[in-house]
Amino acid sequence: MTRFALTVEFDGRPYMGWQRQAHGPSVQQHIEEALGRIVGAPPVVHCAGRTDAGVHALAMRAHVDLDSAITPFRLMEALNAHLRPEPIAIIGCEAVADDWHARFSCLARSYDYRILNRRAPLTFEQGLIWRVPQRLDSDRMHEAAQQLVGRHDFTTFRSAQCQADSPVRTLDRLDVIRTGERISVLARARSFLHHQVRSMVGCLVMVGAGSWSVSDLKAALDARDRAALGHNAPPDGLYFVAAFYPGEPSR
Amino acid sequence: MTRFALTVEFDGRPYMGWQRQAHGPSVQQHIEEALGRIVGAPPVVHCAGRTDAGVHALAMRAHVDLDSAITPFRLMEALNAHLRPEPIAIIGCEAVADDWHARFSCLARSYDYRILNRRAPLTFEQGLIWRVPQRLDSDRMHEAAQQLVGRHDFTTFRSAQCQADSPVRTLDRLDVIRTGERISVLARARSFLHHQVRSMVGCLVMVGAGSWSVSDLKAALDARDRAALGHNAPPDGLYFVAAFYPGEPSR
Repeated sequence: MTRFALTVEFDGRPYMGWQRQAHGPSVQQHIEEALGRIVGAPPVVHCAGRTDAGVHALAMRAHVDLDSAITPFRLMEALNAHLRPEPIAIIGCEAVADDWHARFSCLARSYDYRILNRRAPLTFEQGLIWRVPQRLDSDRMHEAAQQLVGRHDFTTFRSAQCQADSPVRTLDRLDVIRTGERISVLARARSFLHHQVRSMVGCLVMVGAGSWSVSDLKAALDARDRAALGHNAPPDGLYFVAAFYPGEPSR
Repeated sequence: MTRFALTVEFDGRPYMGWQRQAHGPSVQQHIEEALGRIVGAPPVVHCAGRTDAGVHALAMRAHVDLDSAITPFRLMEALNAHLRPEPIAIIGCEAVADDWHARFSCLARSYDYRILNRRAPLTFEQGLIWRVPQRLDSDRMHEAAQQLVGRHDFTTFRSAQCQADSPVRTLDRLDVIRTGERISVLARARSFLHHQVRSMVGCLVMVGAGSWSVSDLKAALDARDRAALGHNAPPDGLYFVAAFYPGEPSR
């Protein structure tokens, strides 16, 4: 048996999310079915972090165990051939130690939430970015974001469906960066609660638009109450960008 | 009567091109129909440069004459509302002098041809970039491209359907720039022949992949013969990026 680590890029628009669902297509299902066509019975693929419907990935990490002498390069090529025409690409593949686990070995995850701050409607990026027509003050958003960095009870920013044992998380960074009409919110943590990034971004946009002050955001965090939430950002702008593992260079 | 200059961004995937066609949807048709819903009878819209089926624009320039007291801002907002959900956005609108003509006043046009140089298939950008799996030497492509800069007879790089009176054009610049897996070919000229950019890019990719030498490209130009052409790049990667007019800052 060989354990293969995969790096996966996918456009989340057509999928119910990473995880297999009874009621619609998922990224996991397509990758497992492609593997099944290569090695016989479809094996189970584990990922670093499950994503919601409509959320994208630039470099999701995953692993799978195969009883096959196939090389990592051949496996990557075969997977990409069998995944066609789905917008899912295997952009990296390597053999790893048997105790390397995409989810449990992962030291940190990072997300990029992309906003297009302009009045004109979307063209190329429908479903790939959140268009916000009101002018956003990105410096103020960044200032407000720093209040969320560190170890906190993030109950306010957690969905009702969240299955985590504890609402306490340590946010390593939450940076708001504007480049012209584009705003990126970069979030990094060991792990996130369900909807945490989208909830934080929704509130930061309220700060950027002037409907919330910087201290309103702090008050929402301190309330530890989902009812204190401003609103959730849509899945469109959310990208899983990296997972970090022991022995790999961190970014 | 007021003449309005429009700046138009569009995703070319669903269209037969800019120009109205009997056999399929066009960008011009959608903009003219949207104008018709705002001012009554649809007026004619003139553009800086017609694009082929599947070719995109980041900032096409166009103009239209309207008997209406509408302000440029209101016109832009109304057009964007009526264009929905087409992937066409009016990103600029201003009142201009009656003798300003999107096509005839234009001093130069520039295009960006985008290549993704990787083995893995496309995800987010299907139809929006040309994926070339063989490793391309972009420095060599840039070197070869410099032979095309200047005033030449571009018969080799002209489609059989080209309606221009002369095959002579002056290419101001043709720069090949790599950023990671992405290669941009930036072309600027007063005007281009039909298929000229895609033909030049197709040949540059043959140079980058090593199937052509730098002097093979020069020989193809000198042949002044369409049969000497390597191959055309697909429309997917081609973007009309700018048109330049008197009194505007050039790039």
